Parts: sequence; C-alpha cells; structure tokens
Amino acid sequence: MAQCVKKEDDPERPKPHYLPKTENYTCELVLRLLFLVSRTEHTWLFLDCEDLAATPFLRETNPTSQVVYINLLPCLLLVLGKTCVQYAVRGELYLRASELQKEGKKIIFTNVGNPHALGQKPLTFPRQVVALCQAPFLLDDPNVGLIFPADAISRAKHYLSITTGGLGAYSDSRGIPGVRKEVAEFIERRDGYPSDPELIYLTDGASKGVMQILNTIIRGEGDGVLVPVPQYPLYSAAISLFGGSLVPYYLEETANWGLDLNNLRQSVAQAALKESLLVRAMVIINPGNPTGQCLSEANLREILNFCFHEGLVLLGDEVYQQNIYQDERPFISARKVLIGMGLPISKEVQLVSFHTVSKGYWGECGQRGGYFEMTNIPPQTVDEIYKVASIALSPNVPAQIFMGLMVNPPKPGDISYEQFVRESKGILESLRRRARIMTDGFNNCRNIVCNFTEGAMYSFPQIRLPPRAIEAAKRAGKVADVFYCLKLLEATGISTVPGSGFGQKEGVFHLRTTILPAEEDMPAIMDSFKKFNDEFMEQYEDHRGYSRM
Amino acid sequence: MAQCVKKEDDPERPKPHYLPKTENYTCELVLRLLFLVSRTEHTWLFLDCEDLAATPFLRETNPTSQVVYINLLPCLLLVLGKTCVQYAVRGELYLRASELQKEGKKIIFTNVGNPHALGQKPLTFPRQVVALCQAPFLLDDPNVGLIFPADAISRAKHYLSITTGGLGAYSDSRGIPGVRKEVAEFIERRDGYPSDPELIYLTDGASKGVMQILNTIIRGEGDGVLVPVPQYPLYSAAISLFGGSLVPYYLEETANWGLDLNNLRQSVAQAALKESLLVRAMVIINPGNPTGQCLSEANLREILNFCFHEGLVLLGDEVYQQNIYQDERPFISARKVLIGMGLPISKEVQLVSFHTVSKGYWGECGQRGGYFEMTNIPPQTVDEIYKVASIALSPNVPAQIFMGLMVNPPKPGDISYEQFVRESKGILESLRRRARIMTDGFNNCRNIVCNFTEGAMYSFPQIRLPPRAIEAAKRAGKVADVFYCLKLLEATGISTVPGSGFGQKEGVFHLRTTILPAEEDMPAIMDSFKKFNDEFMEQYEDHRGYSRM
Repeated sequence: MAQCVKKEDDPERPKPHYLPKTENYTCELVLRLLFLVSRTEHTWLFLDCEDLAATPFLRETNPTSQVVYINLLPCLLLVLGKTCVQYAVRGELYLRASELQKEGKKIIFTNVGNPHALGQKPLTFPRQVVALCQAPFLLDDPNVGLIFPADAISRAKHYLSITTGGLGAYSDSRGIPGVRKEVAEFIERRDGYPSDPELIYLTDGASKGVMQILNTIIRGEGDGVLVPVPQYPLYSAAISLFGGSLVPYYLEETANWGLDLNNLRQSVAQAALKESLLVRAMVIINPGNPTGQCLSEANLREILNFCFHEGLVLLGDEVYQQNIYQDERPFISARKVLIGMGLPISKEVQLVSFHTVSKGYWGECGQRGGYFEMTNIPPQTVDEIYKVASIALSPNVPAQIFMGLMVNPPKPGDISYEQFVRESKGILESLRRRARIMTDGFNNCRNIVCNFTEGAMYSFPQIRLPPRAIEAAKRAGKVADVFYCLKLLEATGISTVPGSGFGQKEGVFHLRTTILPAEEDMPAIMDSFKKFNDEFMEQYEDHRGYSRM
Repeated sequence: MAQCVKKEDDPERPKPHYLPKTENYTCELVLRLLFLVSRTEHTWLFLDCEDLAATPFLRETNPTSQVVYINLLPCLLLVLGKTCVQYAVRGELYLRASELQKEGKKIIFTNVGNPHALGQKPLTFPRQVVALCQAPFLLDDPNVGLIFPADAISRAKHYLSITTGGLGAYSDSRGIPGVRKEVAEFIERRDGYPSDPELIYLTDGASKGVMQILNTIIRGEGDGVLVPVPQYPLYSAAISLFGGSLVPYYLEETANWGLDLNNLRQSVAQAALKESLLVRAMVIINPGNPTGQCLSEANLREILNFCFHEGLVLLGDEVYQQNIYQDERPFISARKVLIGMGLPISKEVQLVSFHTVSKGYWGECGQRGGYFEMTNIPPQTVDEIYKVASIALSPNVPAQIFMGLMVNPPKPGDISYEQFVRESKGILESLRRRARIMTDGFNNCRNIVCNFTEGAMYSFPQIRLPPRAIEAAKRAGKVADVFYCLKLLEATGISTVPGSGFGQKEGVFHLRTTILPAEEDMPAIMDSFKKFNDEFMEQYEDHRGYSRM
C-alpha cells in the first residue's frame, strides 16, 4: 500500500498527502489518486521503499535511493520508465557539434554514414527515373526528350504502370508487387537460389524494418536478443524501446573483430541462468558496423548451426553488402550459406535479412528505402507481420522505386549504362582508397591501433588512453572516450562517435568515424587528427602505463 | 512448476516429456528446456491449468481450454502473445477484394482514403518542385525552363539550399529545420497564436507519428488510452501492438456522432475501478473518421477541461482539417481552443496534434509525409521523443518537401498560383458534391440511415439488418456486417469496411466507404449499391423486425 512520506529537509516540497488505507487500491490507482490531488495543490509524491518494491516502473527510475520524490505533473503523464533509450550516433557529441556549427565553426560530420551530406553526388539514372515518376505529366511533354534520356523515360513509364495511382497512392503495405518481384530476382542472381516475392517486404529504410521485426519478437523483458558488441546502437535502442533485454556477445578485436562461438554459448548460458532470459533471436551485422569486418562462409555456418541448436531467429543486417574493400573475403549472404547447408538446417533456421538504398554506392539515405526478406518464417507469423505493416498503411512509394532501380540497374547496351557504371565504380573505388588512407593514418598515430576496414563505411580505431587522461575525464564527469572525442571535436571540428556508444570491453576505448569525407580532404583531416592526438597524448602521458589493449 | 500432460486421444502428438522437478526453474526456462528437447524429437508440449496460471502469455493465447497444446517449433520463435492485432481497413474484405481483382473482377476500392488510387490527379506545382529536387542536375540544364515554370525552379533551389546534401541525405531526425519553420508559420496563421518549430517533428505520415507518441505513452497493459468508438483502427491496432489497453468512449449516432461528456466520465471511472487501468491519454479525431462529424468549439472546450481535470494527454488527429463540406462548423484546432481558454488550462493540458500530406486536396498518401506538434509537453519528454525519433534516423526527405509546400503553397502573383487554386478548388468542390450524393444515396435505400459527411473522406451509414440476415450470417460463421459487406463486394465489386472494424454499439451495424470514387462514376455506384441492398433486404426481410436503430 502506497503511503506518502514527508521529507522534512526539503522546503520546496511542502505538502505530502496520506492516503486512506484501502486494500483494494492497486499501486497504479493510488498513484492516480495522488496525482489528482496534486493537480490542484502542486504536491509532490513521496514513496517509501516498500511501495517501490510493489511498483516496478518506479523502482527502475531510481534504483538506489531510499526515498523517491517525483513531481507528478510532468512525469506521470509521459515517458516514465522509458528514459533509458540511448542513441549515441546522435548523442552528446552530435549535439555539441551542432552547437559549434551554429557558432560558425566548420564541422566535419563523420558521425553518421550519410554520404550525400559529405558531398557524394547521387547516381544520375535513378534520380531521372524517380523525377519523372514524381512529375508524370512530363511524359506527355514534347520537350521531355531534351532533358531526359529515353531509357529513363521508359523505365519511369514501367514503374508508373505497376502502381495504382502513381507515387501519390498508398501501395500494398508490403510494397509494390512488381518491385518485390525485382528484389526476388536480384536475390536469386546473387545467391543462386530462388526467392519468393511474397516473403519480401519493402520498408522505409532498413532501420524501420529492423524495428518492426524486433517489435514482433520481443514480448517483454524476459525476451533476450543476442547483439554483437561493439554494435550499431539501433539494436540497443530498439530493444530497450520495445521492452526486451539485450544479450551481448563480444567480437574479438585482436582476431580482426571475429566471432568466437564459445563467447556466444557463454552469453546465452549466462543470460538463461543468471537473468532467466529466454534468448529468442540473434543479430549479425555483415559487413560489420562499426567494426568493418566481413564474415567468412565458415563463420556464417557456425552461426547458423548455433541458431539451429538454440532455436534462435537470425537477423542478418546486410546493408553494407555492396561496400567491400578487399578481395579475400567477398560478401556472402546468410541466406546463401543457410540454404547451402542442406536439411534439416536449411528448412529450420528462421532468418530475416535486411537491405537498403542508403548504403552501397547509392547512399540514398534521405529517401528511406529498404526491404527485409523472410526465410523459414512460419506462414502465420508472416501474416502477422503483414498485419503490423498495415497499421502504417505503406512504405513511402518513391523509395520503393529506388529499391527497384537498385536491384535492377541499367544493363549493358542501355543508353545510360556507361554513365551508371562510371559513376558507381568511381564511388566504390574512391571508398576503397579512403578506407586504406584512414586505417593507415590511424595506425600512424601514437597509442592508436586500428583494424583495416574490410567492408561497410567506418573506421573503429582503439585509443589507448593514458591513465592521467582517464582521471581527467573522471574529474570532468565524462566517460573517457567521450572526453577524448569532445576534445577532438573542439580542436579539429571532426565529429566522431565515442566507442562507448557501441559497447566495448571494460577499460578499452575506441571512436568510430565514417570513411566518407571527400577523398581530396582526407589527407588534411588525418593530419589534423594526428596533430590533435599527439598533443593530447603528450599532455596526458606520464609513461606509467596505458589503458590495456 | 510446468509439467507435461499426456493427451491420450491425440495420436498426432505422441511424445510428452516430463521435466525434473526443480524449484529454481522459471516458467520461461522450463519452456526453453522443453523446446530444446522438442527440437530434435518433434515433441509437442502439454501444459495443465496450473502452469497456465503461472504463465500469463500462454494463458492469454487460449483462455478457455483446460489443456493447451502447442507445437513449440513455430510459436515459441515468433509473435506468440502478439496475435491480437486487428486491422480492418486491410482485413478480410480487402483480402477478398484483392482475390476477386486477380480473378479479373472490376473492384471499386473504397476501403482506404487513397484518392490518387481512384484517379485524383496530383497537384502540378508541388510535383514539379519535388521532381526538380530529385534531379538537381536539371537546374543547370539550359532547357529546364522549357518544361518547368520559374517559380517551381526557384522553390526547388530554395529547398535544396536548406538541406545538407539534398534529398539523398538524412535530415535531422525531427525534420529539416527550415520546413519545420514553415509549418510553425502555417500554424500561427491558422490559429492566431505563435508556434515553436522546435516542438514540431516531421514524420513518415501521420500514422507513424501517432504510433511513436502512443509507444511513448504506453508502458504496459495497465495504461489506458481513451479512443472514440467508432474509431479509425490505427488506434486499436497500435495500442494493442505496444501492449496498452484501449478504453472506448461512444459517439452518439443520433446526435450526429457528437461526444457526450457523461459517456467520457463513465468510461474513465469504469476503466479505473473495474479494470484497474490508469488512463493516460485521450484521442480525438476531428473531423471524424469514420464518422465524418466536425467538433464544435464548445465541444472542444469540454474535452480540454476534461483532460485538465483527469490529467490526460490529448492526441488530436486533425489530418482532415482541409476536408470540410459544410459552413456551419468550420474546422477549429484543439490547440487554438486550448490556448484561448487561458490559464491555468492553456499551460497545463498536454496536447499532441497530427497532420499529413495524405489528405486534404493533396491526397499524397504514397509520399508518407506528416508532422506532429507538441503543446505543453515537458522539455525532458520532448528530448526523449527526439531520441526515439533518432533511432530510425530521419523521416523521408522528399515528403518533408511536400509538407513545406502544403503549408506554404503558391501565393497570389506567383506564376503557378492560378493553376494551383484551380486544381485544389476543383478537388475540394467535387468532394463536397460527392459527400452529398453519397449521403442522399444511402438515405434513399431501404433500412439505411446515414448522417451527412460534414468533413473527412468517409460515409458511415447504419444498415438495419433484418433478424434473418443476422441468423444467416451466424450460420456462415461471420459477423453480420462482414456478411453484408462480403455479399455487397461479390455482387457489385464495391469494397467497403464493415462497421465492426471500427467498433459500434452491440447489435448496431454499419459500413464505411470513402467518398472518393470519381464524381462521374458516383451515380452508377450508388444505383448499383441500392439495387444490391434492396434485393438483400427483400431476401432476408420477414417483417418481424430489424436490428435496433
């Protein structure tokens, strides 16, 4: 039974109320009654520990204090119990960088993989097609051929013919059937196995797809999801938002961010026995974000075997499949490996794979287009996912057209083919060179070691911070890598994301930067970084030792 | 403690397993162990009632039976406990209509407010601007002036100048600051009170905004949200998806779908005392969907007063604010009424208002653009909502440009002004005539009464079904209005949504249709409807009586 406890030493909170003792009130109802009283008299609510034990959502907001006091007016209304969502990619560093930019400082935003924002030009052909779809009346204009090539015009007519009402009409909630067919054909060409358009759902970007699937899997905090650490914080944030539990498995930096099956097994066992979690799903990011590694076929087989024996749904985040910067480990999809493993595994492991128009050499982030493909998901679950997709009616239609164009680009012989190849190869080859410049640049800096970016769009160097830097950070009330990244930002304008935003082993520090700044700016950026870093190390190093490797 | 119970009479499920009795296992863990056993031996799990009591998520899936048997393989993996989401707008009727269409039958889709799918032409000027933003290289083409007017060109340049990287770059997660400023200026012109762009977030359509706010408000099944009945099923589906509880309040059909405060008070009291729910928010849809009524200023004042005294967040779904078909009750925003009420209410009632580019005379559903504006939401909650918005990075950028254009259309003197006015007035005036044709058509049918569509895009006639029709439906295993709508679909190709999808009083039946079919087709559609209805009534009427009014 909730009671109000007077907290004598706080003159700001003068009017505690005592409730009549009634066994029939639930905690929620008591809170509501108190709230109604407080509405008119500006009273604060005091709860003693006994109440907390009976009111989990309050206990969570303040787990250590003996007495909790709450101004009921704002916090009962909204968001209480949901304040735990963290999202580092747009966190403290990003906010500070935005402030500095407003003050006139030149900021190099490397916090998000957002190529066009850093000057990457869009591919011409797909933009021509979508522009024509947006302005279908141009197709009747006698001058249209003066500024649009014939293959863009005919492709626009094709896409308009497979919609009902053009870009302004809701499509089927799963996406335009004709585009899903194009996606299925792309997957079949890529993997060598047929793909079913009915199991492909188009989404407003891959993140929205991941969120929908996680929302479907998670029923409550007893449900665990295995997530690699370091991880892209979409996963931690979405799992927290939907009320589930993240179960981390560590990638091994010294083994080029490889995945060790023993770590995985240990994570699941610990989650089950210590936290009573039911692990229901596992996430892999291939190529890795922020870690940049490409998974080998052998590693993928191990993972799929593990999912089979543990009964886990595998979520394959494969949005960087076109971003590969070495030849030893080309991208191979989880689906291709799964089907190649044969029965019973090929028909039993449930897999959801994600892709997007935001990455690759497209970088069409702002269009928000993506898809997910379901393999071995039971039909009634597929129906359920369809229903949930229907709530928001349909993914945006222009980005569906971009997805069609991405999986079905101009072919040899088409008018726009050569231009398309020239543009896309130019972007990919430059990214490959930039990955190399950046890794070498970081490895050239005092107290920094960095694995090569095999794929994706990021560099994730380890910063071996001297103990005095860690102490200075503590005095400033900052996590040590946040402290370092803030100093870097102030000194150079380079806006990165501290490794703690992705998770890292205790006492080890990183930062993440994209490899996206323009190639011609890259040497100057790395020089500026090196100058800052060397001065930082000089300032804080006392030759007693470093944070461990 | 979970035990497996053998169900002798079922030869399909032969291998029950008994678990070792250990007090330390939680129900979830027991299920997990059983599941791992079943993975290899295809065992089914049998649970007796005692286990059910301890395992709420199982109890919910099958509340009546004494013994539950589950094939663990599919259902433990995904979605168990989430199968309750219903979404009638794309439900049984829609699926059947899609089938019939595939078979070659001509279907008139009036199930979703999707104007372009029914032939409404997009407004020319905004499409020109967005096409140019998609293809910015056209701005350097000497021939661009041959097919685009100068004001579209200069507006496209303006929008590109306020993005960082054009339509292909993620914007700020709240939307492009310059567009949010245009929205704030629109709200100020509309309401006569200043609006703060920092409290306006752009979204991928209004539905996504509603879902985000409901996800923020709902912490668990103890949280109630007041929703009008009949209601647009976005609300019931999203509340169910996020695990909250819908608290219905009934609109009065005989009072032109008006809202009675006594009904509201009764709903809250009942929810609190009978179901121990904490009602945290209230939804109004103005103009109403599916009911089409416009709320008066007096009614809005009553609602805001109620929210003040009950401490509720008000969600104002105002997506149909441009769709008004009478002059007695023009649209007035909840925000305008709230601020006009003065202190303390104007500073205390928390309000979130929603708008979209999908409705009005725009009908740009497929673009997925919307916004929500927050009034009196505490700053820390606004920050939290920003963080959640950041998880999916940004709303799609093309639709943000559409939103800018919607709130800031061509002005007198602009080259495109006259065309824009001609197009938009043409659409609105035709909708007004269609609303009248449809209402009159329904009221002209046997056993049908229909309130006039004052606003929005729907007609919601009451069908007084004869007892013999209700009996026939029961024999067919259908809800009576579903039975009627299916017969209508098969006979005429008109695809509607049964009233039960929106909620209605017990024993009263409706259907919802949009008023969107082309004006020239309208008389034929209403004739075809009348013919079907009169024959249906003739077949089932025995003059004993009807379902009650």
